[in-house]
Amino acid sequence: MTNFLSVKDAGNINELISSANNFRINPFSQQSLGRGKRIGLIFLNPSLRTRLSTQIAAQNLGMEPVVFNASQDGWSLEFEEGAIMNGTSVEHIKDAAPILGRYFDILGVRTFPSLKNKEEDYNEYVLNQFVKYSGIPVVSLESATVHPLQSLTDVITINDYLPLQTKMKPKVVLTWAPHVKPLPQCVANSFCEWINAWDKCDFTITHPAGYELDKNFTKGAHVTNSQAQALKDADFVYVKNWSSYRDYGKIEDNDVNWMLTKEKLSPSNNAKIMHCLPVRRNVELSDEVLDSPNSIVTEQASNRVWAAQSVLAQILKDLP
Amino acid sequence: MTNFLSVKDAGNINELISSANNFRINPFSQQSLGRGKRIGLIFLNPSLRTRLSTQIAAQNLGMEPVVFNASQDGWSLEFEEGAIMNGTSVEHIKDAAPILGRYFDILGVRTFPSLKNKEEDYNEYVLNQFVKYSGIPVVSLESATVHPLQSLTDVITINDYLPLQTKMKPKVVLTWAPHVKPLPQCVANSFCEWINAWDKCDFTITHPAGYELDKNFTKGAHVTNSQAQALKDADFVYVKNWSSYRDYGKIEDNDVNWMLTKEKLSPSNNAKIMHCLPVRRNVELSDEVLDSPNSIVTEQASNRVWAAQSVLAQILKDLP
Amino acid sequence: MTNFLSVKDAGNINELISSANNFRINPFSQQSLGRGKRIGLIFLNPSLRTRLSTQIAAQNLGMEPVVFNASQDGWSLEFEEGAIMNGTSVEHIKDAAPILGRYFDILGVRTFPSLKNKEEDYNEYVLNQFVKYSGIPVVSLESATVHPLQSLTDVITINDYLPLQTKMKPKVVLTWAPHVKPLPQCVANSFCEWINAWDKCDFTITHPAGYELDKNFTKGAHVTNSQAQALKDADFVYVKNWSSYRDYGKIEDNDVNWMLTKEKLSPSNNAKIMHCLPVRRNVELSDEVLDSPNSIVTEQASNRVWAAQSVLAQILKDLP
Repeated sequence: MTNFLSVKDAGNINELISSANNFRINPFSQQSLGRGKRIGLIFLNPSLRTRLSTQIAAQNLGMEPVVFNASQDGWSLEFEEGAIMNGTSVEHIKDAAPILGRYFDILGVRTFPSLKNKEEDYNEYVLNQFVKYSGIPVVSLESATVHPLQSLTDVITINDYLPLQTKMKPKVVLTWAPHVKPLPQCVANSFCEWINAWDKCDFTITHPAGYELDKNFTKGAHVTNSQAQALKDADFVYVKNWSSYRDYGKIEDNDVNWMLTKEKLSPSNNAKIMHCLPVRRNVELSDEVLDSPNSIVTEQASNRVWAAQSVLAQILKDLP
Repeated sequence: MTNFLSVKDAGNINELISSANNFRINPFSQQSLGRGKRIGLIFLNPSLRTRLSTQIAAQNLGMEPVVFNASQDGWSLEFEEGAIMNGTSVEHIKDAAPILGRYFDILGVRTFPSLKNKEEDYNEYVLNQFVKYSGIPVVSLESATVHPLQSLTDVITINDYLPLQTKMKPKVVLTWAPHVKPLPQCVANSFCEWINAWDKCDFTITHPAGYELDKNFTKGAHVTNSQAQALKDADFVYVKNWSSYRDYGKIEDNDVNWMLTKEKLSPSNNAKIMHCLPVRRNVELSDEVLDSPNSIVTEQASNRVWAAQSVLAQILKDLP
Repeated sequence: MTNFLSVKDAGNINELISSANNFRINPFSQQSLGRGKRIGLIFLNPSLRTRLSTQIAAQNLGMEPVVFNASQDGWSLEFEEGAIMNGTSVEHIKDAAPILGRYFDILGVRTFPSLKNKEEDYNEYVLNQFVKYSGIPVVSLESATVHPLQSLTDVITINDYLPLQTKMKPKVVLTWAPHVKPLPQCVANSFCEWINAWDKCDFTITHPAGYELDKNFTKGAHVTNSQAQALKDADFVYVKNWSSYRDYGKIEDNDVNWMLTKEKLSPSNNAKIMHCLPVRRNVELSDEVLDSPNSIVTEQASNRVWAAQSVLAQILKDLP
């Protein structure tokens, strides 16, 4: 594995899951792998779970993680080729990235979508320049369009419950939820492409009209505007808000009736409830659902460590 | 030791002091105790000494400390049960704390009082939810009402000078001092309950009328509004500002005549001068006092490391 | 080496270069030197390269670096002797520095000039108080007037190319460049005194009239207001903006014609191009120059690690 930017870099997903499960049992089993190696974790916007879990994963592998919060250090980057830098940007990615490439063995980068320029966002304009100019393996800590470490975590978590399933393929539902502000499509896009690529689930996406995701991520999944129909017989329900892809970055209609409640879940197959966190309680889903034994959001967040460790171990093994 | 939230969790104070003194001589004597363990240090408000000393104490014990400054990362928590989270809080403590409990073996948490809602503050509304929901040992890095790592440091420092005392019980005085803004009662409350529990000193508290502390912390101590009377024959003088407990969080009367000066100290028994720092020079006490050989504030701050190490070692030993 | 505040503390520059070159080949060759030692890196203003490279250098030597960003933690220091601290400063350097001296074995400090009070800046009012009150070795991470770790890096980088030179002494040119805001004279001052002390180059400084640097740093160098004349036959061209020393901290005349371009470099001896970074592209120098093979700015930045490691190793060896 050279980079880890999306499911396309994952190789064999089941092997990544299996490696993660081994690390969960024995976190320090490969401490020599990262000895003397350094990972730089560059955050262009804030993070709790991703930062902590990747830091811990790196330490478990014997690596030294160094965190750099770009915004807090007033370090605003320029990405435009040929820019005359007489404004507020203090450094061009062409100058900054190669140096990070000299200081570190692996680079973790969190970028974010503008939610304004769809083309730039969906071309991963920012992340790709880190890849282009750093010259070392880059791990996405969430980018403009996807969040692969989260999605790997999601499949690790679903996989834990597969032995309990009686169906050939459990029914996994991604349901849109209301929110207070326009969020990226990253987690949703990414979950879609991973569930599709993994191919162990029967996959349904449900959202109000107008919230259609980019077909490049969803193709193969059932899509419906009827949440009730989607939830019927569901084994896993992933709750997530996203802003419009079509009317890019906008909130079409923040229909509060889409909040997930216990009542809505009764036709499900005693479904496990998932969310990437942070979650807006009683906006996205009700306390009753989150506090029920069906919620597996804490396990999901815990698995972030093993997902990151599995990916970093693979990259370390493949370092030139 | 499961948690370290106040003197009630301290167990035998003399054993904690003795353990701290051993670490001062040999900081790395128990490096294997914390190997492979992690402490998360969560700051809901900023810190210098507490952060650095706890970080160093953890490293001395072989642990990996991970610092997380909540405010800087725009991570505002919700604490209200049943809240409809459509405002500015991005995550509920019920969701955040369990995950910290999975990522870490011990959690250090700094909270702070609102200085507005006395009942919530004095019930340790925020800290107690970290304890309730994290599921791992929690160490207070200062909370709404107390600062036990500071107080342990204070008794460690006084203990160093006990052999030089001729009295059965040296006279320890806590004197209120003027300040420029309303401060919590934490350090004062905490010093009171530790000195009382330790029971090796004759303890006097002095402050202007209106600055009475909560009796739950002070009972057993002499209290007087006459600073002159209190300072007479004093062996140790602890200088500290606090805002009103009665008229909660208010500055009753910032009487500048309460600033501690060399002249005022002349009837003392060549008293050692203590302060938790940071100190407002020539507001709380004069340069002359702080720069005199009687000031032991630097030793006090140095002992923060050994106090934290003593507590963390005990918690590590008692981990399930 | 006790402190590293300027070229005066460097001792034998060639030995420092040679030590840096050894670390570049074998970064972990002296891990036992720093084992159990701690360096505090205190930033009174933000930093990317200096922070990361010093952190990495310390880790390479087995030390534990602890970073403290003063401004982000709302920790504003008082430096005035006898100040009545009833304003916004929360702690006096006289109280803070001794404690840092107890917590750490070495202190790295980044300060910055006011660009208003020339006398205070040029007396290194702030940095010197850290030295005076901390009681441990202090390494400048850039101060009000110099940036010695950058300058050591610069001579290490030039030294790499000396074997390729045919002249007895290569021609090194420091050229002023336009910028969007008034910058310190630090990098320029420091480069001058190091190149002069190293005495392996023929050294020319060029800038518009009004940008004369303090003669204490430049004496021995050729100074000219003709950029064209300076660049003729140049082997190394160091590009840097600085504000006026004479009309202190002001921008005299931000003459855009001083931007370094490929065309201007044609009379040079195929000169290598240097810059401390961050650089304002197409303001200080053109894309064409920065993207050409003659640019050695990335190598320069990489060498920051070995410069810092060379200095820290020497200080560690000389610790009492």
